[in-house]
Amino acid sequence: MSIYEDVLQNPEKFCLNIDTLGECKIPSPVRNPVFVEEGARIYIDYDVARQKGHLARGVEPASFEKAGPHRMIFHDPAWSRAAILTAGGLCPGLNHVIKGLVEILTLDYGIKTIYGIRYGYRGLVSEHNLTPLMLDNDVVDTVHTLGGTILGSSRGQQDTMKIVDTLERMNINILFCIGGDGSLRAARDIAEACKDRRLAVSVVGVPKTIDNDLNFVGRSFGFETAVAETSRIIQAAHIEAKGTVNGIGLVKLMGRDSGFITAYAAVANPIVNFCLVPEQPFVLDGEHGLLTALERRFKSKNHAVILVAEGAGQDLIEGEPVRCDASGNILKKDIGEFLRDKITAHFKAIGVETSVKYFDPSYTIRSIPAVGADAIRCYMLARAAVHAAMAGRTNCVVGDINRSESYTLVPIALAASERQKLNLNGDLWRTVLDTTSQNFYFNPSSFSKRIDARNL
Amino acid sequence: MSIYEDVLQNPEKFCLNIDTLGECKIPSPVRNPVFVEEGARIYIDYDVARQKGHLARGVEPASFEKAGPHRMIFHDPAWSRAAILTAGGLCPGLNHVIKGLVEILTLDYGIKTIYGIRYGYRGLVSEHNLTPLMLDNDVVDTVHTLGGTILGSSRGQQDTMKIVDTLERMNINILFCIGGDGSLRAARDIAEACKDRRLAVSVVGVPKTIDNDLNFVGRSFGFETAVAETSRIIQAAHIEAKGTVNGIGLVKLMGRDSGFITAYAAVANPIVNFCLVPEQPFVLDGEHGLLTALERRFKSKNHAVILVAEGAGQDLIEGEPVRCDASGNILKKDIGEFLRDKITAHFKAIGVETSVKYFDPSYTIRSIPAVGADAIRCYMLARAAVHAAMAGRTNCVVGDINRSESYTLVPIALAASERQKLNLNGDLWRTVLDTTSQNFYFNPSSFSKRIDARNL
Amino acid sequence: MSIYEDVLQNPEKFCLNIDTLGECKIPSPVRNPVFVEEGARIYIDYDVARQKGHLARGVEPASFEKAGPHRMIFHDPAWSRAAILTAGGLCPGLNHVIKGLVEILTLDYGIKTIYGIRYGYRGLVSEHNLTPLMLDNDVVDTVHTLGGTILGSSRGQQDTMKIVDTLERMNINILFCIGGDGSLRAARDIAEACKDRRLAVSVVGVPKTIDNDLNFVGRSFGFETAVAETSRIIQAAHIEAKGTVNGIGLVKLMGRDSGFITAYAAVANPIVNFCLVPEQPFVLDGEHGLLTALERRFKSKNHAVILVAEGAGQDLIEGEPVRCDASGNILKKDIGEFLRDKITAHFKAIGVETSVKYFDPSYTIRSIPAVGADAIRCYMLARAAVHAAMAGRTNCVVGDINRSESYTLVPIALAASERQKLNLNGDLWRTVLDTTSQNFYFNPSSFSKRIDARNL
Amino acid sequence: MSIYEDVLQNPEKFCLNIDTLGECKIPSPVRNPVFVEEGARIYIDYDVARQKGHLARGVEPASFEKAGPHRMIFHDPAWSRAAILTAGGLCPGLNHVIKGLVEILTLDYGIKTIYGIRYGYRGLVSEHNLTPLMLDNDVVDTVHTLGGTILGSSRGQQDTMKIVDTLERMNINILFCIGGDGSLRAARDIAEACKDRRLAVSVVGVPKTIDNDLNFVGRSFGFETAVAETSRIIQAAHIEAKGTVNGIGLVKLMGRDSGFITAYAAVANPIVNFCLVPEQPFVLDGEHGLLTALERRFKSKNHAVILVAEGAGQDLIEGEPVRCDASGNILKKDIGEFLRDKITAHFKAIGVETSVKYFDPSYTIRSIPAVGADAIRCYMLARAAVHAAMAGRTNCVVGDINRSESYTLVPIALAASERQKLNLNGDLWRTVLDTTSQNFYFNPSSFSKRIDARNL
Repeated sequence: MSIYEDVLQNPEKFCLNIDTLGECKIPSPVRNPVFVEEGARIYIDYDVARQKGHLARGVEPASFEKAGPHRMIFHDPAWSRAAILTAGGLCPGLNHVIKGLVEILTLDYGIKTIYGIRYGYRGLVSEHNLTPLMLDNDVVDTVHTLGGTILGSSRGQQDTMKIVDTLERMNINILFCIGGDGSLRAARDIAEACKDRRLAVSVVGVPKTIDNDLNFVGRSFGFETAVAETSRIIQAAHIEAKGTVNGIGLVKLMGRDSGFITAYAAVANPIVNFCLVPEQPFVLDGEHGLLTALERRFKSKNHAVILVAEGAGQDLIEGEPVRCDASGNILKKDIGEFLRDKITAHFKAIGVETSVKYFDPSYTIRSIPAVGADAIRCYMLARAAVHAAMAGRTNCVVGDINRSESYTLVPIALAASERQKLNLNGDLWRTVLDTTSQNFYFNPSSFSKRIDARNL
Repeated sequence: MSIYEDVLQNPEKFCLNIDTLGECKIPSPVRNPVFVEEGARIYIDYDVARQKGHLARGVEPASFEKAGPHRMIFHDPAWSRAAILTAGGLCPGLNHVIKGLVEILTLDYGIKTIYGIRYGYRGLVSEHNLTPLMLDNDVVDTVHTLGGTILGSSRGQQDTMKIVDTLERMNINILFCIGGDGSLRAARDIAEACKDRRLAVSVVGVPKTIDNDLNFVGRSFGFETAVAETSRIIQAAHIEAKGTVNGIGLVKLMGRDSGFITAYAAVANPIVNFCLVPEQPFVLDGEHGLLTALERRFKSKNHAVILVAEGAGQDLIEGEPVRCDASGNILKKDIGEFLRDKITAHFKAIGVETSVKYFDPSYTIRSIPAVGADAIRCYMLARAAVHAAMAGRTNCVVGDINRSESYTLVPIALAASERQKLNLNGDLWRTVLDTTSQNFYFNPSSFSKRIDARNL
Repeated sequence: MSIYEDVLQNPEKFCLNIDTLGECKIPSPVRNPVFVEEGARIYIDYDVARQKGHLARGVEPASFEKAGPHRMIFHDPAWSRAAILTAGGLCPGLNHVIKGLVEILTLDYGIKTIYGIRYGYRGLVSEHNLTPLMLDNDVVDTVHTLGGTILGSSRGQQDTMKIVDTLERMNINILFCIGGDGSLRAARDIAEACKDRRLAVSVVGVPKTIDNDLNFVGRSFGFETAVAETSRIIQAAHIEAKGTVNGIGLVKLMGRDSGFITAYAAVANPIVNFCLVPEQPFVLDGEHGLLTALERRFKSKNHAVILVAEGAGQDLIEGEPVRCDASGNILKKDIGEFLRDKITAHFKAIGVETSVKYFDPSYTIRSIPAVGADAIRCYMLARAAVHAAMAGRTNCVVGDINRSESYTLVPIALAASERQKLNLNGDLWRTVLDTTSQNFYFNPSSFSKRIDARNL
Repeated sequence: MSIYEDVLQNPEKFCLNIDTLGECKIPSPVRNPVFVEEGARIYIDYDVARQKGHLARGVEPASFEKAGPHRMIFHDPAWSRAAILTAGGLCPGLNHVIKGLVEILTLDYGIKTIYGIRYGYRGLVSEHNLTPLMLDNDVVDTVHTLGGTILGSSRGQQDTMKIVDTLERMNINILFCIGGDGSLRAARDIAEACKDRRLAVSVVGVPKTIDNDLNFVGRSFGFETAVAETSRIIQAAHIEAKGTVNGIGLVKLMGRDSGFITAYAAVANPIVNFCLVPEQPFVLDGEHGLLTALERRFKSKNHAVILVAEGAGQDLIEGEPVRCDASGNILKKDIGEFLRDKITAHFKAIGVETSVKYFDPSYTIRSIPAVGADAIRCYMLARAAVHAAMAGRTNCVVGDINRSESYTLVPIALAASERQKLNLNGDLWRTVLDTTSQNFYFNPSSFSKRIDARNL
């Protein structure tokens, strides 16, 4: 049984409420009282339910609890002490989320004590001696215009028991963890340890994945800003490629397990000729290999732009000889540098001039602030997280599963269970194939004669 | 009976197919054959159907035809001649849509003749003598990086019969109209006139509304880019406001009938203090008026940023005396200039120093190119439009009703029937009230004592 | 005798030293000791001196004192208290200058007390009750990334005696005034009043004029950033103009007395067709008027982009009837709105379709942070100002007269004496005429037949 | 005798005129006749002449011919055929220069035939079969908004004789070469070969060096745009550095022989802590090495931003073991990657946590279009180049030696003779030391006790 089925069939195992420790008996102080209906749910599986005939039999499709302010809340604002931390790599919008959490805690609930935990979970382990920032509206006033996180971040595991000790010692009853799947699993462990100790602590996650690859949480914040920012780099790659004979602009983008950023970037910038993602294997050599495809490309146009997700083609680099750095350390195998070297060597070998310009812009992209609709998502997620925490939910993340303006609460176990992937039969990937025409270069004989290759 | 109910109950009246004039009997030349299932539909009204008990009785919720490539198509690519026009005001993404249409017509269907009609419908009326551009992949190669429209645009009505004469004379069997509700109604008239003349012409609309206020088409292209671009202006307004004692940055944004851009901009830029939209009336004077609210604001912070949609507060300016320009022409009443003058006069009258800096950035915002996820939407809409047209659909627009990656075909009559509006009880508007705290200034006594006003 | 000749012939009247009150006898604590030679001067008038035969007779050309760190300084860092204020309108780079002043005072001289005076000179008049900010390296850490001024600004005169009282009361011995010519004249009055009272106060100005129109100070900070930022607006104007039949994009730029920004913007954006500046009168009507010129333009291309400096064509609007706002207040006569109305009326009258899109971007442009070489200028000016003040100079401004990396000290009286203007016979204005071709439209018969008008 | 002295003493050897082959006897058709005076010169060495007492003896300081339109020209516009090429790496402003050349050739002189030579000098060697673009005002209409070069570029030498054969065969009498020192030397060879063959061909260079390191040509185009663009990257590096404990943002910038871009970028972004340039050697290890300096930095602040010019520290990497890529090819030694590896290894060895984020943004920076004052420089240089060529000058480059608006003609031999370098005793480098405080970290004991280290 998958964890998804487990959640559906045994909801009590994934109960988000800590009010088993007491009741929601405090009237909400929220001043714009359009409360969420108790029990309101958002349906995610209407199509499945319909196809399987469930609907006809009156069976409810799968759903998640709807997020929003509750009429009666669990935690008393008068003595609540909240903490916020950011964990893992940078992502546009972190400060926007922090600002949103602080403002809603303060302005809607009047909470006075909000700790900004330094450098992720490490800041909750006392031996690291990291004094928290005290957060209020003045501190976060303009942080949304800054990339990165004012709290600092870190990777790596910390001891759950030590963290819960700290929460207990500092009287923190609300903890917001902004992080990716590893960080969310740590949040789950904390939530469970709190329950075990009968501590009434709400642990609520705001899912952070610039790759947009978490399950059941819709679109993650920062993703759209990252996609938009790729344009600057891809235009540079195009200009560099066109600037020399048979120039190639090769851009490595984020995406270890899924190619969402890369695929979106290809469609948003219809000057990309090859889009290589983890979900779609490819080979270098032979009739249908990338190198031959590039040769074909150079017969019609003498430049090419290639996007490659960092997780694409991992099988190709597996067997490669180990490289060391100047100090003798073994270097990580990198698909971008690998392709750069292989393409350069291939065209040298066959006596065709080329020039590969390689771009690795991940740090530049992920460190900008969120903009526009993506910035709004940050605030809405923060809002959903605060209302959930105040109403005593825990061990959950917030999401906009259907990308509507209605947000849901999803058990962490489910959101972090497996990665979302590109559907190679979906409209998005088909559109990538349309905008790049890459299949024509990989496999020209499959194309209708009606399409004139010179048009490409 | 509303037009919406009419569509649902009498689908034959709103039939999108011109294949009443013949069958779809030509095999599609599309090279990535993940065809849409014939009869596939996207459901828009699941919640309604569920609440009304329809689902339990096996009644289908309301739905639209799913867009995508069809296995058998109506128009023979070998002799098809397509035309593209843009009508109405500028919007980010117009050239992106044009590029998408041209590339899919060319690369997927091998169509050789694509007219770029100049200056909207005017270019289809022969007496204006506007020679069309001939569009191909080279012409549109980099147009997506330019704002505006390479075709030019115009407003105002043209004679439908003259337009259809031109289509007939030029042998155009596929017409793409990129425009807002007025322009789409003109497209509907053309589609109907073609049917009357038994001309097998597909007229497909790509809905353009920077205000995001069309019905049943989800999010319109250009909207998200416009929202993101407001940040630059709102930051300038904030800096100007903070630069002087009691400085006010007043920004007028697009939105004649709906406040979507203004509301999104307020949440995306949580330095906005007042967000005024057409859907929410307000007054200037009295205890709960804007002027008193500004006075209250200046007691806690001595600057303010105000966003106002161009269609907000129209009742306030109705009775105002007429203003004339230097040549004696009557000036349009403008809520932005009106507020600037009223606020300035009020604070002068009560002897409080202030300085109102007014920003009217609409032309700057609407003339930039689309970026990121918004750019993708342009391409996906273009893709849906071409596949629909080739399969003989007409009198329809394309949309992404649920903001998923699945696109639908919507009868023009329905999309252009009435404007989408902000829901004042929805999460978006509630979040505007959270980020601005404006209700505190308009009506402080309604606030819980728990919230310390000084925090604002 | 002009003030310039007065300065040259009677340098003692414009003495910048307050060390008449004592000697420079404190060794400089500056840690990178490349001290300026005592007596070093920068020559500004080599060409004049050469043409007049002065050089041949060994006569020195006119020169200013070279700025830089001095070996012996006047003010004892141990007890010095500095103050910084910003006055007048916003300009890119204000915060950059403030950061530079604070860092050099702190890191080079170890000064502990630096007041950030609020809202310009007003903050030095005690009755306004404006508590200064205390400035240190942490406060200014990232202010260079923000537009505007963290100190706030104001316009209008304050009482010099009250200001000097405050300086005396607060024990301020170093005052930096960042402002335009009016603000610098106020600084001069303060410097002179201090001398009269025998207060050893150094008053040093950093000249701020986004219009680049101060005398003898080379290029002012913020000017280049402003010019670069015009591109965004001018591109929008071009796209709007091309988007409709006979579209006109009309952009009003800063420049009350001189057309530098407008002329630079025209050359930097060679899509501008008309560049109207205060230095070059023009008429609307008649054979050589702007309206006829536009008619000619529409015969070759059906769009036009016009830049107009706010101070251009003031004679044209002088006689215009008074306009009032909604409250009955008289409206400022504005050349931008005037041209918009006149052009619209003219083409309506002669039955030619047109559409004028008007842009007034001054607030947006002036509120961005300085970038690149302009940001460097801010820091270099701040550096020159601090070293000058510590060495007991007063009543002077800093400048880079030859736009080299060598900075000079200029008597305020001279810098603020008259405005720098565009030279209509210089290379810059000639290049404006080249890039715009505007003289062809104003006066086509004067053109060689060799030039084919259709090329324009 | 240096080449500079040679030029001064033997001007006839470096004669720029080809009118030894005939006279300037054609009246200029230029329509804005503010002609340059025949014989007008710009003086570059006033200070030298003054210090050496030359002036007192009436000896002229060194000077160059002033650029500008001449009353009588050499080449007859009616039969002139011009060619333009771009050679070497990309640089902001290339297309701006091309547009300027085309517009002035066309609009000022009425020249009809302008060849856009493809891929640098290679396009002038017939065996490469590269058909030139035909350039006119329409082709270059909006190219100034695009980075890169519409002509393409290439590196590497071509046979001068074959190039001159092509010029002769194509009847090209005016050749503009936009390139760096290698490319300019090729232009010099062509000019000399033309003279030898008694071909009346004007070869005029527009100096292109993003590093700003050419002699006697003032500031090169593209440099200021490149400096401004570094801000985006440096801010990202700062945010990444602050995002983790002891985070380091390491940015490699352009500058093989000179550190101008790196030094300017450090001052423009006063968040940089270390600025490493070719002109200033440094060591890694020991008391005054970079690694110890970083350790000191981490004692006061736990992040650091390092800029390194690509040509800095070449002695450090000389002895390093050779690295190979995946195909066994030897990798270029790169100071950026070298520092990344060394710093990482050092802190690992001493057990201090750190995280080095490395940025290599050169391709992204150099491929953007020129903006603002830099864009103006492009047009002014183009203008000077065309007027020089039409007046029969050859074997020269154009420049703005004093960074005034007056341009000069400089013999190619002189401009390309040696590289301009940072003056380590000049104001710019001193300001770098001020803004970075790096000497405090390298050598703290040299600092005055008055300066509190904690302030850094």
